[in-house]
Amino acid sequence: MTTYDNTSLPIGIFDSGVGGLTVLQAIRDELPSENLIYLGDTARLPYGTKSPASIARYAAQATAKLLEHDIKMLVIACNTASAVALESLQEQMHPVPVIGVVVPGALAAVAARPGGAHLVLATEATVRLGAYGKAISRHDPKARVKEQACELLVALAEEGWTNGDIADSIVRRYLADAEHGEFKADSIILGCTHFPLLRDVISEIAGDDVAVVDSAGTTASVVRETLTASGGLVACNGRGKLKLLATDGAMRFARVGGQFLGEALTVEDVQLVDL
Amino acid sequence: MTTYDNTSLPIGIFDSGVGGLTVLQAIRDELPSENLIYLGDTARLPYGTKSPASIARYAAQATAKLLEHDIKMLVIACNTASAVALESLQEQMHPVPVIGVVVPGALAAVAARPGGAHLVLATEATVRLGAYGKAISRHDPKARVKEQACELLVALAEEGWTNGDIADSIVRRYLADAEHGEFKADSIILGCTHFPLLRDVISEIAGDDVAVVDSAGTTASVVRETLTASGGLVACNGRGKLKLLATDGAMRFARVGGQFLGEALTVEDVQLVDL
Repeated sequence: MTTYDNTSLPIGIFDSGVGGLTVLQAIRDELPSENLIYLGDTARLPYGTKSPASIARYAAQATAKLLEHDIKMLVIACNTASAVALESLQEQMHPVPVIGVVVPGALAAVAARPGGAHLVLATEATVRLGAYGKAISRHDPKARVKEQACELLVALAEEGWTNGDIADSIVRRYLADAEHGEFKADSIILGCTHFPLLRDVISEIAGDDVAVVDSAGTTASVVRETLTASGGLVACNGRGKLKLLATDGAMRFARVGGQFLGEALTVEDVQLVDL
Repeated sequence: MTTYDNTSLPIGIFDSGVGGLTVLQAIRDELPSENLIYLGDTARLPYGTKSPASIARYAAQATAKLLEHDIKMLVIACNTASAVALESLQEQMHPVPVIGVVVPGALAAVAARPGGAHLVLATEATVRLGAYGKAISRHDPKARVKEQACELLVALAEEGWTNGDIADSIVRRYLADAEHGEFKADSIILGCTHFPLLRDVISEIAGDDVAVVDSAGTTASVVRETLTASGGLVACNGRGKLKLLATDGAMRFARVGGQFLGEALTVEDVQLVDL
């Protein structure tokens, strides 16, 4: 009997745009030999202000495109798509494992501040669905959760204005809105893949007592554990290959994506695809 | 011989989202008896960061949808779509007249400051195409033009943070970026339909010498002139009907759209359509 060896197949990573490259980067740090293929649905970003029905349809189309490339696992690097469509994508992909970023982000917060008060900064759609609140309560019934929509932080990260007075006042205002009333956060969850770019300013304003966590690192750990459990880690030791797909605007993808990946990209690094 | 009387048909107005409601409002002020139908392509907004090819395809689909409603004129209320697709939509709609917002905006600036220096605040896509620069030069060869991409102003207007310190510092920074070097603006063109919401803060920072102009008023005048020339103005004197269509998120459309229209909208006022 022969077993089909799929370990050299790439891990597929999907996001509404470039923000998920922070998750890709964490996976590359954790598992440098894995081959990775990333799809950014730049033609229809942002997802965070769209309706759940549209988000679910877009996510299903992106997933179908990645399946054409024969992937061994799917990572939904977009918080909004994870909040809306994780279960339906797991059905669509079965038996290929599908991992979202919401549960890993929630686990990171619970580990950092057990029994604590968690402030989730996220997009409108993610907040409306309360996905982080549900995931945190499931793992830590004593925890308290507040979710705050922060659309301007997305634009701020895309513009590259990630420090200075403007970033400072916008973050201050959202935190003040969130902490209005009796809520004092022990942890802040960066519940959108754009927000790690603003980690420094958020940490500084929140103060040393507050743990600022994101999904990228814990998602990469979950990817490693899942592949290990199924014997699916790539066998070789070299540097894995990286393929970048986008549905629109290769030039903008390269420019803004480079900020997220922390390395310069050119338009030739990005392949345009239709969904 | 009988002539087909189309004067009671609605004027179709199309935008990527809710921003074009500022143009709709100006048309309603200018021509209160006209029936109006507005389509906001909220499923795929914003257009300003997308590629010209995608923008052209979206605009053609939106136009086809409005044609199903039997319109007597099409107004492209989105600066980006006007910059990219005006001519192709005029072909698609022939003989129904099609008016964009770029040329009326350019005419308003030239009229306010003949031979002057014009600063265009717009989206990335509009700036990349240089549509305002071309339109201004055609009507005033002595004019100088600088175009500045201001993506954060879009998010600011949608968030409703249209005054206060944050709006102030963001506008200051974009104006400082634009006036870096030798350029001193005599007029500022609000080259995105979101920006009229920020007119007060822009005017205050720019100072009394600078004319701040937008396309809405002049577009409404061009609509009147075009209909008058063809005998197409509606005959009755009552208040015209208004129909609002959106491709996604009726609730968000109602909430944000109300800010632009200056009146409360409910989710029942907005009909969802597929493109």
